[in-house]
Amino acid sequence: MAQSVKAFGWAARDSSGVLSPFDFSRRSTADRDVQFKVLYCGICHSDLHGIKNEWGFTNYPMVPGHEIVGVVSEVGSKVQKFRVGDKVGVGCVVNSCRKCDQCANNLENYCPKLIFTYNTVLPDGTVTYGGYSDIMVVDEDFAIRWPENFPMDKGAPLLCAGITTYSPLKYYGLDKPGLHIGIVGLGGLGHVAVKFAKAFGSKVTVISTSAGKKKEALENLGADVFLVSREQEEMKAAAGSLDGIIDTVSATHPIQPLLSLLKPHGKMIMVGAPEKPLELPVFSIIMSRKTVAGSMIGGQKETQEMIDFAAKHNILPEVEIISMDYVNTAIERLEKADVKYRFVIDVGKTLKKAE
Amino acid sequence: MAQSVKAFGWAARDSSGVLSPFDFSRRSTADRDVQFKVLYCGICHSDLHGIKNEWGFTNYPMVPGHEIVGVVSEVGSKVQKFRVGDKVGVGCVVNSCRKCDQCANNLENYCPKLIFTYNTVLPDGTVTYGGYSDIMVVDEDFAIRWPENFPMDKGAPLLCAGITTYSPLKYYGLDKPGLHIGIVGLGGLGHVAVKFAKAFGSKVTVISTSAGKKKEALENLGADVFLVSREQEEMKAAAGSLDGIIDTVSATHPIQPLLSLLKPHGKMIMVGAPEKPLELPVFSIIMSRKTVAGSMIGGQKETQEMIDFAAKHNILPEVEIISMDYVNTAIERLEKADVKYRFVIDVGKTLKKAE
Repeated sequence: MAQSVKAFGWAARDSSGVLSPFDFSRRSTADRDVQFKVLYCGICHSDLHGIKNEWGFTNYPMVPGHEIVGVVSEVGSKVQKFRVGDKVGVGCVVNSCRKCDQCANNLENYCPKLIFTYNTVLPDGTVTYGGYSDIMVVDEDFAIRWPENFPMDKGAPLLCAGITTYSPLKYYGLDKPGLHIGIVGLGGLGHVAVKFAKAFGSKVTVISTSAGKKKEALENLGADVFLVSREQEEMKAAAGSLDGIIDTVSATHPIQPLLSLLKPHGKMIMVGAPEKPLELPVFSIIMSRKTVAGSMIGGQKETQEMIDFAAKHNILPEVEIISMDYVNTAIERLEKADVKYRFVIDVGKTLKKAE
Repeated sequence: MAQSVKAFGWAARDSSGVLSPFDFSRRSTADRDVQFKVLYCGICHSDLHGIKNEWGFTNYPMVPGHEIVGVVSEVGSKVQKFRVGDKVGVGCVVNSCRKCDQCANNLENYCPKLIFTYNTVLPDGTVTYGGYSDIMVVDEDFAIRWPENFPMDKGAPLLCAGITTYSPLKYYGLDKPGLHIGIVGLGGLGHVAVKFAKAFGSKVTVISTSAGKKKEALENLGADVFLVSREQEEMKAAAGSLDGIIDTVSATHPIQPLLSLLKPHGKMIMVGAPEKPLELPVFSIIMSRKTVAGSMIGGQKETQEMIDFAAKHNILPEVEIISMDYVNTAIERLEKADVKYRFVIDVGKTLKKAE
């Protein structure tokens, strides 16, 4: 880019897991771009994978963050959706080819040339930087209109955790009232999945390795049933009870016990991505015509639909708001699953250059 | 049963893989039963698994056979669908509970209490015996009307191989004209799957480990593309080309290369059942929202629909007709995949008691 504007954020410089302040630049606002001041940014578990290069494709220095909410500070001459002062959200994707079948079907998230919000190398050699930073510049097509009167701090994680669980519930027909839906894993994704499934009118069973989460799941999140996945008797009694499962666990884990919970023709959707292959028991899926499938975030149109649905039904993640300089502690705690359920950085008030 | 009729067939007595002549009895024709003289019976690969007790639940002596065609010899007083002299077919299932959700939805094949045509122990302690025998007695609801002028010998394997591949193509929406469908494995199931997919108006790619099957697949069976699964360049060039895959292979095999052939949102349906779990690459199914699912035979209503469709479109398996006393050689040859593509026993003309 010929022109550019100064930006400031926190970046990972290596795989140590530690972030530090980082000066960089963003492109000047082009005709169809929106520039906005970042107010809040959620810390997603995949930020952690990226920071530590656990998936093997991190480009350092890397500024993470793809659950970003802010206020528009400048718009390009051809921008139609936004004005200065509007509230805006950006999720995991900031551009795509716009020509392929996926893009034509509002599924930019499956475009083979999609550009992730951070850590994607662009044709000109520059790298995208995420929302742990003061400003963002994005094409307006990849910015979400933030609903009026919808909290920006608590709502930020919906831009990844929300759409990642909302989209498969819709696509796989698991949003019909009266279904019985299982949610595996009660973390950032799982606890939002419970809320969406309840809003769709489902009976919800939470399946967790941790018996300690029972009260929280049933009393605070509104789940109907809680199963400890290691308790074989409990699991056996629930066999064949679920129409669908959203599996949010990204650690390697056995899926046979989960498949057993499904009714015939039931569907288990994986949204957490274990590094190693899982064991697929083929007999199980054949005998009762079961499905194991995947889903990754969602397209822009569906993300807007999701956030409007969340605002209408008052679906908000449970978050712990932190200051920017707490981020390294937060990452350590996230690694130990010591958070209920999402950290959100108050970027607007706490990201400051050293004096 | 108080009354019974004498029957004669060939049975496996142990896991050696050898069958021998066997005298037994069947129930007398009850009010809703159809008794028929068996004319032809296909040899399914699962007969082989059963004969050798490879799935671990064989009850010896076992009379195999679930691709059975014959002519009605006696009907019960309340039978409505059949008269003496009618042609009739029986597949893998001869009864079910008739009360559950599956039965109510014409999916008796997924009824938890389904009774398989052979090797199922009934409540009274008797065991079901299959079609390698002179007569069968079944409830009329589990007998298929055989289409007029449709060959009984060649058509017999449709009662298992046909419905096993037809049902998933329909259920998973892979029957729409213009789709590009992959068929993995060119055996008894695979070669019928190619014929159904072509009849639905699909472009068909056959994926096989054996380069020698190319000419056969393209010239005789009408496939459009042939891929050798070990040829990495060939497979890479075909990446992302298929809307759906029917995987008929029951040996342990890697599924990642097959998943790579699917377009985003593509579906791979397993109908062959490897004994050991397969490796499921979760990243692959998440990144492009792919499905891995199973399917097992089909319900009675759909089996009738399938056989009528096959008759209308002249879809017939390629078979080698054998005499009853060739069955042990046939089983040896089947184990070496030395058959194009299904053995059918001419039971009517060749099953004889020793004089």
